[in-house]
Amino acid sequence: MVSFVQVLDFAGTFAFATSGIRLASAKRFDWFGAYVVGFATAIGGGTLRDILLGVTPAWMQSPIYLICTALALFWVIAFGKYVITMNNTIFFFDSVGLSLFTVVGISHSLMLGFPFWVAIIMGSITGAAGGVIRDVFINEIPLIFRKEIYAMACVVGGLLYWILSLIGMSDFTCQISAGFAVFITRLVAVRFNICLPTLKGEDYYKKKG
Amino acid sequence: MVSFVQVLDFAGTFAFATSGIRLASAKRFDWFGAYVVGFATAIGGGTLRDILLGVTPAWMQSPIYLICTALALFWVIAFGKYVITMNNTIFFFDSVGLSLFTVVGISHSLMLGFPFWVAIIMGSITGAAGGVIRDVFINEIPLIFRKEIYAMACVVGGLLYWILSLIGMSDFTCQISAGFAVFITRLVAVRFNICLPTLKGEDYYKKKG
Amino acid sequence: MVSFVQVLDFAGTFAFATSGIRLASAKRFDWFGAYVVGFATAIGGGTLRDILLGVTPAWMQSPIYLICTALALFWVIAFGKYVITMNNTIFFFDSVGLSLFTVVGISHSLMLGFPFWVAIIMGSITGAAGGVIRDVFINEIPLIFRKEIYAMACVVGGLLYWILSLIGMSDFTCQISAGFAVFITRLVAVRFNICLPTLKGEDYYKKKG
Repeated sequence: MVSFVQVLDFAGTFAFATSGIRLASAKRFDWFGAYVVGFATAIGGGTLRDILLGVTPAWMQSPIYLICTALALFWVIAFGKYVITMNNTIFFFDSVGLSLFTVVGISHSLMLGFPFWVAIIMGSITGAAGGVIRDVFINEIPLIFRKEIYAMACVVGGLLYWILSLIGMSDFTCQISAGFAVFITRLVAVRFNICLPTLKGEDYYKKKG
Repeated sequence: MVSFVQVLDFAGTFAFATSGIRLASAKRFDWFGAYVVGFATAIGGGTLRDILLGVTPAWMQSPIYLICTALALFWVIAFGKYVITMNNTIFFFDSVGLSLFTVVGISHSLMLGFPFWVAIIMGSITGAAGGVIRDVFINEIPLIFRKEIYAMACVVGGLLYWILSLIGMSDFTCQISAGFAVFITRLVAVRFNICLPTLKGEDYYKKKG
Repeated sequence: MVSFVQVLDFAGTFAFATSGIRLASAKRFDWFGAYVVGFATAIGGGTLRDILLGVTPAWMQSPIYLICTALALFWVIAFGKYVITMNNTIFFFDSVGLSLFTVVGISHSLMLGFPFWVAIIMGSITGAAGGVIRDVFINEIPLIFRKEIYAMACVVGGLLYWILSLIGMSDFTCQISAGFAVFITRLVAVRFNICLPTLKGEDYYKKKG
């Protein structure tokens, strides 16, 4: 039987893969290139996490991620025009993916006996590193370093997980709450256009000075 | 005694290192930078594979890859003018390298007990990921995502390996056949200019729509 | 009690993180992005080394590197104007970091039983790979491939380590000498503007030919 988490995992993978494939299409990648970028976007974060934790990456244990990426590719090829206008739907699933991947990354690391501060970083890596790999592949400055609250939402969710765990909440409560915290942080940040301050570059001081 | 496979492995490493060093020279890298890019091109794919499989990378077990890259560097420094006009020879050895690295990647993964679909991916990574790392280092969009049948040839070879293995062929037959399949797929694709279709970007739909 | 090496380690981490944060600020990264780039610059080399050696990365065992990067970020945010004019101080600590990280990388690899030629590569990776990751993140061609003696200094230090070890010097003597060799090689190279030759690109031969 397929559990609720597996459905969310599939939806998140699909959304992440689609985001990679869409950006690859803007750079005129061929189908194979788009597939690889989509796949790397979907599984890159979890793979980096598993390499750091010293375990075998999840996608090497089940072909579901390969299949899911293939479906995302067919979807973009067949319905490209609509996919491009479905920004809200894709944003929704991308945020679901981010939330879920973060929670999975945290639980996974805690289960392996790592302390909470490592687990929060691993949760953020699971959620956000795939997008960084995607942006390196398409030769752009990683988006998450410049715009929007993205990986920061993972950290917020991770900290809530930690606090709830400290005051004795069950794993399940921690996970659900952390997931919602990531989702809502991202939603609120995008809705109200909340950004982190940017650093002033050398130019700024030269002009002033 | 040096086996036939070791000779091919050396030739493939040399061809891959040369391809990295040539591209580095177009970007005016210094000798050290060119060496590092050449080395990363040659061993990058196998290293990523071994990290994913959880074993120690091959190049850490024998200095032959370091020496081979050094020879490639000397060769480009001394005969740069000729190397640049030897496109066909380099293409030949690069394709030999691709074929051999793919077969090595597949056999290696099967030997460690991974299923066939993982082994095919690992074969493709062994053959093609070095070129991706090279292109990231020289700050270009990875070539294999945009042009020619390259990593796709690894997948074709991998699928043939699988089919032959399913119908009971010996390991040796599978390996030789898969290697030739990679080589010939690449040759035919380049000779007849066969490409995968590219994805249509947002511009396309905007212009049409 | 805090040892002398730990103080140097902290100073080196701080200098590396600052170099990442400064370059991120030139690209208008937000605080979070700058923090991630600074952190990756500081721990990237050691992390790649530990992944290759098959052990858990050092920064996952103590939060000191996270804290140190946070201090570097606060420092740049608060004193940006001064940080930008402190080129000499930063150069000094960056070279200290490079020397120390190289020696740590070599000792670490030897302790795990790897041969000397692997250890020297690991020392160079520990010292220089963080800067490569930084440059990939900010979408520039890695500086160390094009300019200055940088990773080459690590190799010089590593070779001295090897020679001293071969003639029977104590570990401590080897480490101190190798560290100074890295530091002085870098200093002398920058002071007298010593560069490695660059490779001639295709243009050169076309123009000549």
